[in-house]
Amino acid sequence: MMSITHFYIWYFLCMGLGLASVVCVCLWNSHWRGGFAWDGSSLQFNWHPVLMVTGMLVLYGNGAVLYRVPLTWGENKLPWKLLHAALMLVALILSVIGLCAVFGNHNVSNIPNLYSLHSWIGIITSVLFATQWAAGMAVFLVPCSAGSLRKLLKPQHVWLGGSLMTLCIAACISGINEKLFFVLKGNTNGSLPYSQLPPEAMLGNSLGVLIVAFRLVVLKILSNHEWQRPENQPLDVPYAP
Amino acid sequence: MMSITHFYIWYFLCMGLGLASVVCVCLWNSHWRGGFAWDGSSLQFNWHPVLMVTGMLVLYGNGAVLYRVPLTWGENKLPWKLLHAALMLVALILSVIGLCAVFGNHNVSNIPNLYSLHSWIGIITSVLFATQWAAGMAVFLVPCSAGSLRKLLKPQHVWLGGSLMTLCIAACISGINEKLFFVLKGNTNGSLPYSQLPPEAMLGNSLGVLIVAFRLVVLKILSNHEWQRPENQPLDVPYAP
Repeated sequence: MMSITHFYIWYFLCMGLGLASVVCVCLWNSHWRGGFAWDGSSLQFNWHPVLMVTGMLVLYGNGAVLYRVPLTWGENKLPWKLLHAALMLVALILSVIGLCAVFGNHNVSNIPNLYSLHSWIGIITSVLFATQWAAGMAVFLVPCSAGSLRKLLKPQHVWLGGSLMTLCIAACISGINEKLFFVLKGNTNGSLPYSQLPPEAMLGNSLGVLIVAFRLVVLKILSNHEWQRPENQPLDVPYAP
Repeated sequence: MMSITHFYIWYFLCMGLGLASVVCVCLWNSHWRGGFAWDGSSLQFNWHPVLMVTGMLVLYGNGAVLYRVPLTWGENKLPWKLLHAALMLVALILSVIGLCAVFGNHNVSNIPNLYSLHSWIGIITSVLFATQWAAGMAVFLVPCSAGSLRKLLKPQHVWLGGSLMTLCIAACISGINEKLFFVLKGNTNGSLPYSQLPPEAMLGNSLGVLIVAFRLVVLKILSNHEWQRPENQPLDVPYAP
């Protein structure tokens, strides 16, 4: 009982930090970066951080910890597998739209694509995420896949899942850092450069710290063995042959 | 036996990627960034990436996987605990010198300290690393610390240890990305900007990919339960009261 109470403290912290990250990235791009559009302008770019943080970070992180919620430990794992897959699919779709936002803006503005390290890490993360989702679907949800294959691939799925979160954090932090250097140059109007930490810099840096704190809490939930779903339930793999 | 062969394949991959990262960051800063000095100039700054990658990333990662090496699974864990603590101490010392390099350069050049998100994440990582090392020393190596305290704190030590690697990757990637934007502006001498991926940009981006690959391999080694040191050895905590 103590362990479950402990779990929910961390789980609500996870939800709170995720929500705070989404609010923070939305506020940054709506209030400080001019809002949103889908016209190839910098307002289209603004969808990129919002969708990446919401999809690839917060929804993904919540999908990753889903099986740790004691509520999901009933005999039939299938509905929770479907929810896990659905959360990850929505995360993937938001990420793809987030990538389209930046490619569209770059193409209209004649900015080259995929040259910075941020973009390399981001695109590697996205490709691996799509691969992980497709492989997860084929192996763990398609009814005819063999139980032995599932057993073999589960550790790889868990490992790649954890790795993707690390890659995502690296992509987020480098992206926010890069954007703040791009836009906070300071000028004769009296606006301050990044190095003098104007309010937008504080907001962007705080977003980065929230993102990292969210990752630490997700890792805390995943690393506690007591919070793992008890394995070998009778209907653990209900559709396996 | 198969599992041990498998382990060593991943372990040598880990060593190879770590070595490649160190060679790459040294090559970048010696050949492309003008080499090293300790005079407050940009040549002093060049120690920063080299020492952070060598210490906080590669030595730290090797210290983290040490207990997975089957060679260390003998009855007496103490020598390996001492080696783990020593590797982490060297990693910490190199990181502190790496921080001094950048503070010294900034102070001489009148560049403000600790404003970018990269620097915030980096300093948080360094403070947590020092705290983790001191707490680890006090709890797991000082002979008089209670066994119950060790049991209580081990999961926290493991969790924070893993989190620190994620933070370190985020700091490394954002730092390399930022540096490449700073120095590869292109000019009338015909040198190419970052966006046209000159050789230095390719080298810097490749360093970032090597660092991420190193992290993935470390995570692979840590996530395989078969490679965990068998617990409850008779002399597992030889100095516990």
